[in-house]
Amino acid sequence: MPEKTISPIGTLHSPFVEKFGLPRQPGLLRSAKAEVCLLPPFNDPNAVQGLEAFSHLWLTFGFHQHPHDSWRPMVRPPRLGGNSRVGVFATRSPYRPNGLGLSVVALKAIVVARKEVLLEIECPDILSGSPIYDIKPYIHYADSIPDTVAGYANTQPETLLEVMFEGCCLDMISKLDKAIYGDLKQLIIDVLSLDPRPAYKQHSHDTKVYAMRLYDLDIAFRIDSNKAIVSAMERY
Amino acid sequence: MPEKTISPIGTLHSPFVEKFGLPRQPGLLRSAKAEVCLLPPFNDPNAVQGLEAFSHLWLTFGFHQHPHDSWRPMVRPPRLGGNSRVGVFATRSPYRPNGLGLSVVALKAIVVARKEVLLEIECPDILSGSPIYDIKPYIHYADSIPDTVAGYANTQPETLLEVMFEGCCLDMISKLDKAIYGDLKQLIIDVLSLDPRPAYKQHSHDTKVYAMRLYDLDIAFRIDSNKAIVSAMERY
Repeated sequence: MPEKTISPIGTLHSPFVEKFGLPRQPGLLRSAKAEVCLLPPFNDPNAVQGLEAFSHLWLTFGFHQHPHDSWRPMVRPPRLGGNSRVGVFATRSPYRPNGLGLSVVALKAIVVARKEVLLEIECPDILSGSPIYDIKPYIHYADSIPDTVAGYANTQPETLLEVMFEGCCLDMISKLDKAIYGDLKQLIIDVLSLDPRPAYKQHSHDTKVYAMRLYDLDIAFRIDSNKAIVSAMERY
Repeated sequence: MPEKTISPIGTLHSPFVEKFGLPRQPGLLRSAKAEVCLLPPFNDPNAVQGLEAFSHLWLTFGFHQHPHDSWRPMVRPPRLGGNSRVGVFATRSPYRPNGLGLSVVALKAIVVARKEVLLEIECPDILSGSPIYDIKPYIHYADSIPDTVAGYANTQPETLLEVMFEGCCLDMISKLDKAIYGDLKQLIIDVLSLDPRPAYKQHSHDTKVYAMRLYDLDIAFRIDSNKAIVSAMERY
């Protein structure tokens, strides 16, 4: 069968500028805000007319930080601790043929201004800069099937870590522009409570200081048993 | 942003060989069976290992019977009677940029035989011959959001029509190979009860005899108020 060429209809801008810290499923972080900026010729306000009456959307996006030919028949999903391999089609792994991701997000607002059409969304698990190839309305009677069986991913990962801040970090957060950073404290809590470390680190004694980037901020933290402690923040 | 080239990983084979009669959402026809046949080099049994533990899948497919450049900013969804226009991104219309469809289907079995890997599925709303670009597991804690708001598509379309068969048709159905056609009588009932006619015909006096194709069969029917009457069937 022939190949197909697809073009980005938009670009996503989110707090997640690198893979480390990115939630592994959508819906886990209500504090994470993002926006989809439609690209010409798709930035036509008519193309989103009526969309404001839907609370949730599907975004089909590209795993643009993974090389196009990086698929493998079997991968090690984080949910299995990074040790067990399963078929790539039994996972949401980015190492998949065609490199397309799929996430449901909450639609908060549609902003139409001059030549720009922006969709403000919540709960993305998508890297900033990702190309968006499609936007579809979430239609619950077709898309929501609560009583499915989902193999190794049948239960939602539990929030594991308590998150604490050293004082200097809270000072810095309080001085940031909320219009840009939103509720950054809550976002950091939500991201770190999910324990972004690689699975093999999660059950070992770990003295490493990690750095995670959200927006243009480098955020240093360490993890001591079931507590994540944010120790420093700076602009890069 | 750059274009992206995607390759089919499989082909879908379903009873729906033409658009007329195709259900307008997945999940409406439990009697509809289909299969996804993985294409080389993706027909590696390892690539589906573990998938058998999932009850439902997402299929990302191509609307291959619609020309690549057939998108329009606004379309007339059947749910609005074909009269009102809404933005294409507020619909699941095939007339969309990049021509990608998305459906959840029930996974019934995975068959691995020699060089073939087949996924047997239920409830597709996808044309036979459609290229499949991705298979992902349905993960209910991320994908199932029952309490969303879905604009004009907030309630499931109701089954409208009673379906009756003239005797010759039941005779013919009883002689067909069930291994190929499955429960064809139930499939015809399910398809016709949804009233496949264009919306503008559904509320008018209609004496037309319609023909719908399922598998290799032409099925003639007419609709008399709220009854669909199957009057003839033949192989084409």
